[in-house]
Amino acid sequence: MPDIVSKEIRLKSRPSGMPTHDNFELGTAIAAEATKGMVQVKNLYMSVDPYMRGRMNDVKSYVPPFALGEALQGHAVGEVVSSGDDGFKAGDIVLHMMGWREAITGPAAMFTKIDAHGLPLTAFLGPLGMPGLTAYGGFLDIGKPKAGETVFVSGAAGAVGSMVCQIAKIKGCAVVGSVGSDEKGEWLKSLGVDAYINYKTTKDLTQSLKDAAPKGIDIYFDNVGGSHLEAALEVANGGARFAECGMISRYNETGQSDGPKNLIYIVGKSLTLKGFIVVQYQHMQNQFIADVGGWIREGKIKWEETVKEGIENAPDAFLGLFTGANMGKMLVKLG
Amino acid sequence: MPDIVSKEIRLKSRPSGMPTHDNFELGTAIAAEATKGMVQVKNLYMSVDPYMRGRMNDVKSYVPPFALGEALQGHAVGEVVSSGDDGFKAGDIVLHMMGWREAITGPAAMFTKIDAHGLPLTAFLGPLGMPGLTAYGGFLDIGKPKAGETVFVSGAAGAVGSMVCQIAKIKGCAVVGSVGSDEKGEWLKSLGVDAYINYKTTKDLTQSLKDAAPKGIDIYFDNVGGSHLEAALEVANGGARFAECGMISRYNETGQSDGPKNLIYIVGKSLTLKGFIVVQYQHMQNQFIADVGGWIREGKIKWEETVKEGIENAPDAFLGLFTGANMGKMLVKLG
Repeated sequence: MPDIVSKEIRLKSRPSGMPTHDNFELGTAIAAEATKGMVQVKNLYMSVDPYMRGRMNDVKSYVPPFALGEALQGHAVGEVVSSGDDGFKAGDIVLHMMGWREAITGPAAMFTKIDAHGLPLTAFLGPLGMPGLTAYGGFLDIGKPKAGETVFVSGAAGAVGSMVCQIAKIKGCAVVGSVGSDEKGEWLKSLGVDAYINYKTTKDLTQSLKDAAPKGIDIYFDNVGGSHLEAALEVANGGARFAECGMISRYNETGQSDGPKNLIYIVGKSLTLKGFIVVQYQHMQNQFIADVGGWIREGKIKWEETVKEGIENAPDAFLGLFTGANMGKMLVKLG
Repeated sequence: MPDIVSKEIRLKSRPSGMPTHDNFELGTAIAAEATKGMVQVKNLYMSVDPYMRGRMNDVKSYVPPFALGEALQGHAVGEVVSSGDDGFKAGDIVLHMMGWREAITGPAAMFTKIDAHGLPLTAFLGPLGMPGLTAYGGFLDIGKPKAGETVFVSGAAGAVGSMVCQIAKIKGCAVVGSVGSDEKGEWLKSLGVDAYINYKTTKDLTQSLKDAAPKGIDIYFDNVGGSHLEAALEVANGGARFAECGMISRYNETGQSDGPKNLIYIVGKSLTLKGFIVVQYQHMQNQFIADVGGWIREGKIKWEETVKEGIENAPDAFLGLFTGANMGKMLVKLG
């Protein structure tokens, strides 16, 4: 097996505000034939996710920032080309964190073998991957759903949001999703979501939420922050739980903008707002795979993907997350 | 036992913004000699508390609003004058919710007999009363303190705040309190608090908190909201817990002002913000009395009181809560 010349996307400069193509550059590296203990992998699909925006800033956070001039990282599914480790052989399908490049050679411990059980490989970057566990862990652990409760989900047609919507329906909840287009909203309705709000066309997000959730909301799964959070605070019932997964409306701000005007409801309504990151739910991984795998087989969980082709289009795919270009999981096909 | 003519303070009009004396009026009512099943009580002390401001608004909340033209309500300690119920006799000391008046006659179920065990009766309106349980329940249940952690308390010299500070020290935490005068701060230091911030004189609350808590804060007990909450979000360590007890800086706002600019830290630092009201901790009452009673006997919990004299001065006492006129518990002596 020869070395592979791998194209990769590097962080050229740190974005200020909304990232642009100028923040990225294409480069090449060598993914060498595997020597002892190493595995050489050709990537088939890579994931772009909103959380990556945070790693582009040079600030301390729960993961270190991306390094300037180096290839970005992220979840990817690949196929083993050559292996110097007994645990892997050519043709094995693996999950790993070295996305944003066509191929990679690294120590065996970097890779996790996948048995797809007949599912498309991309499922392991979506409903059965990090976005799925984010939805499953955050919604069940923080939301603590009870049948008959009302759940509000922002970014509801995204990879995480659409999973939350469906898990909430499985748990017997009424679900209202906020989306950026009627097409996305109709897709959610086809999945069983009770009502959607098109936040781009509504004149009054809070009033729309009141109309869609006349009994108030008991759980808010927040991917967006900002005015969505303010509306959720307004419509929350006493004792409501807010799973604070993300605030994508804020990721590209250059300054800090004002928080919700009605935060005092946290006290008056005895609300719980709890932020989380997916690694906190690693201990739920086995139950997650068992539950979601079962729901997929039973047809209770469906998903959509928006797929760009070729490593050169990875920045486009990433930028599209902030303009709502994706329905469901945004992916880049590499293989 | 004759009927008692009881002076009382009524809500004359609903305040807009900071309440004034014009919102209150003095009236009289009759507390009749007790007939069968009834108890006639002369009040000795009544409590004024920040939460009462919320009940002056005509909005749905966890307790119904005070009625216009009627006497206000709140915790009080009184002495039984006459009783038509076997459970009470003249001279008994009772705790009840019919403060803001000199005397009251009501059904026996309204009153709880107190055995003071040699403690001053006012303790049952402070460290062993509702403010004590608020501090004990909220701090232990939401804060989940571990020895060696750092705790930030706003409104730290108030009835609740000063209890939180001392319980935090008992639990082995480092404690930083925010207060409105150096006199209050020095009192807290005499109780063992590690550092205080005078929020009225500091030029930069966040920087002062960073200086006072160089390892960051693990628990924030919030009585104030606003810029205090923003500073706490900034200095919070990953996984920090915020017990959202009150936001007194916001109670007298006529509009809604902007929330903290850095709320996104809830996600990035995996913070938990949890609002609560004291009735949620009623189930901890026995353990609370056992623990705090023991700590008082051991000299580990001390308290201060600011006492106004006479029912006519109850509005003054209440208004003083919003200007920081109280060190420790604000009370009105009636008997």
